[in-house]
Amino acid sequence: MIFHINVPDKSIVPALQDKIDNLAKPKGSLGRLEELAVQIGTIQQTLSPTLNHPQNIVFAADHGVVVEGVSFSAPEVTAQQTYNFTRGGGGVNMFARQHHFGLKIVDVGVNADFGDLPGLIQRKIRKGTRNYRYEPAMTPDEMETALRIGAETVDLVHSEGTNIVSFGELGMANTSASSLWMTFFTGIPLKACVGAGSGLSHAGIEHKYQVLNEAMSKYTGDHSPADIMRWFGGYEMVAAVGGMLRAAELKMVIIIDGFIMTNCVLAASRLYPEVLEYCIFGHQGDEAGHKLVLDYLKARPLLNLGLRLGEGTGAICAYPIIDSAVRMMNDMNSFQDAEVTKYF
Amino acid sequence: MIFHINVPDKSIVPALQDKIDNLAKPKGSLGRLEELAVQIGTIQQTLSPTLNHPQNIVFAADHGVVVEGVSFSAPEVTAQQTYNFTRGGGGVNMFARQHHFGLKIVDVGVNADFGDLPGLIQRKIRKGTRNYRYEPAMTPDEMETALRIGAETVDLVHSEGTNIVSFGELGMANTSASSLWMTFFTGIPLKACVGAGSGLSHAGIEHKYQVLNEAMSKYTGDHSPADIMRWFGGYEMVAAVGGMLRAAELKMVIIIDGFIMTNCVLAASRLYPEVLEYCIFGHQGDEAGHKLVLDYLKARPLLNLGLRLGEGTGAICAYPIIDSAVRMMNDMNSFQDAEVTKYF
Repeated sequence: MIFHINVPDKSIVPALQDKIDNLAKPKGSLGRLEELAVQIGTIQQTLSPTLNHPQNIVFAADHGVVVEGVSFSAPEVTAQQTYNFTRGGGGVNMFARQHHFGLKIVDVGVNADFGDLPGLIQRKIRKGTRNYRYEPAMTPDEMETALRIGAETVDLVHSEGTNIVSFGELGMANTSASSLWMTFFTGIPLKACVGAGSGLSHAGIEHKYQVLNEAMSKYTGDHSPADIMRWFGGYEMVAAVGGMLRAAELKMVIIIDGFIMTNCVLAASRLYPEVLEYCIFGHQGDEAGHKLVLDYLKARPLLNLGLRLGEGTGAICAYPIIDSAVRMMNDMNSFQDAEVTKYF
Repeated sequence: MIFHINVPDKSIVPALQDKIDNLAKPKGSLGRLEELAVQIGTIQQTLSPTLNHPQNIVFAADHGVVVEGVSFSAPEVTAQQTYNFTRGGGGVNMFARQHHFGLKIVDVGVNADFGDLPGLIQRKIRKGTRNYRYEPAMTPDEMETALRIGAETVDLVHSEGTNIVSFGELGMANTSASSLWMTFFTGIPLKACVGAGSGLSHAGIEHKYQVLNEAMSKYTGDHSPADIMRWFGGYEMVAAVGGMLRAAELKMVIIIDGFIMTNCVLAASRLYPEVLEYCIFGHQGDEAGHKLVLDYLKARPLLNLGLRLGEGTGAICAYPIIDSAVRMMNDMNSFQDAEVTKYF
């Protein structure tokens, strides 16, 4: 798929900074909020940015490699949690209710038949990827389909009036795929990219590393970003990449969740580096490797709360801070309005 | 004033942890939120804690030492911002609107006549403290009055149904008083406790340090916590101490704001160490010394966003995270409810 992503016009930045410096507060005293206001004002090309109908899109899929015992959680948890999310009982539902996020749950490859499940967007490509220990996880056609599903889901939320979107994932063994993308795209040794996922022991992590290391050594592709993505990726991860790229094309603000979504935006940025201009990194999670990939991207996440749930929860949790930045631009008095002696 | 503060009964902790570990998510995957849920559940002695009608109390007062040029902002800003807050135009108003906080603005010693200003609680003790470069900032009677005003304001919000409260301050030169409390109470050298406040240059900080160092060298009191508080404190700071102690007495959750409020809870804990059991530290601010006093208190603030506005803004900004912790206990399915295979 081809995307057309522009770098936002930075000529508005001085006017944004001037407005911020004239709010009735010591200069710079709202720290990161002021930086967010500049970023969002630049994306939206306005001194009075707005956040409209935030939504979180959860892509769910299974991974063939799960049979190798790389995941602490049982494989059937992907399907069970898909049900649970559609019924409102998951962590992501709680955060979405709290912060008034719309929520889309999209099956792109769960190894289960959901029948006619209300609340589920059914775009299943296949019942899980192939096992990349022995063969590429998906075909080029499947990868293209996953990208397109991601983009089309963003088209849907955009058509509903959304201008800020976050992405989450559900898929047992998807930290494994993320670690492989990370090591290929950053050059950071695999060992440093592999962590506990949903709760592996030290021995479990070592086994996961051995399986991934073997998969890596058997890789015979062309080392292009697209080839690495399809060889090891999950459908839910590729869909997220497609969603992020479409969101940037549509000049939406993108909130990045944890380890897996950070590796998805890393992959997306290998295709279109401009996507990063639209991204706000929600949090630094507890998965080993997350800090390393954030540092590689020079990303400064808003939160650091030891979260490692995925689903988009860390992104939604960071939303109020982004909202504060926008409210600052619209809801605070200037020195003049406030009749306060300018502090500088 | 005498306060009766109990350490919450910890025997409920295993039941709280058990409930958290049975929510449909990997064990421990909500990180700090899980710790907050245990703390609040213990304070409230329930497995289903609630946060009711959060309020932020801003105490405002002037400092006699301001004539020594220790503050970047003009002295009249205390009065001007008091007006601005009552009209809803300040940073604190924006955060309060966003997170549905009630707001009390209390004049305990602003150097201005406000007449009959709607939205202002008028409890002025004196038009600013005395200049502690030459004499104690307040008398023992004034200090007692400030503590009582703080406690009574908390009684007021408690009577309105509030069970979680934050405190903020407004008072030019109050980082100076805070630095003095900090050095006396922690033993950390004054130099490391002094920072830029609302925007001092390097030379300005050096001048501030010289003035405070001289004030410190002239101190002839008895080194008791109460004496140090009255010698250097602001009325707004002592009122916050009284408010925190009453809030703990009433088993309310207390959110601690930035540098000044952290030094207030430090002072409060010198009188009643148990107060810390009720405190959640909202953020690490940008004022030099804040990290040091947080480390001294072994406090782990929720946010680190470079904020240095005061007014309670950093506390209110952290509220959604605390709210998430409580919602987790009430709004998420257990493994059993969710029909999800337990992850461990």
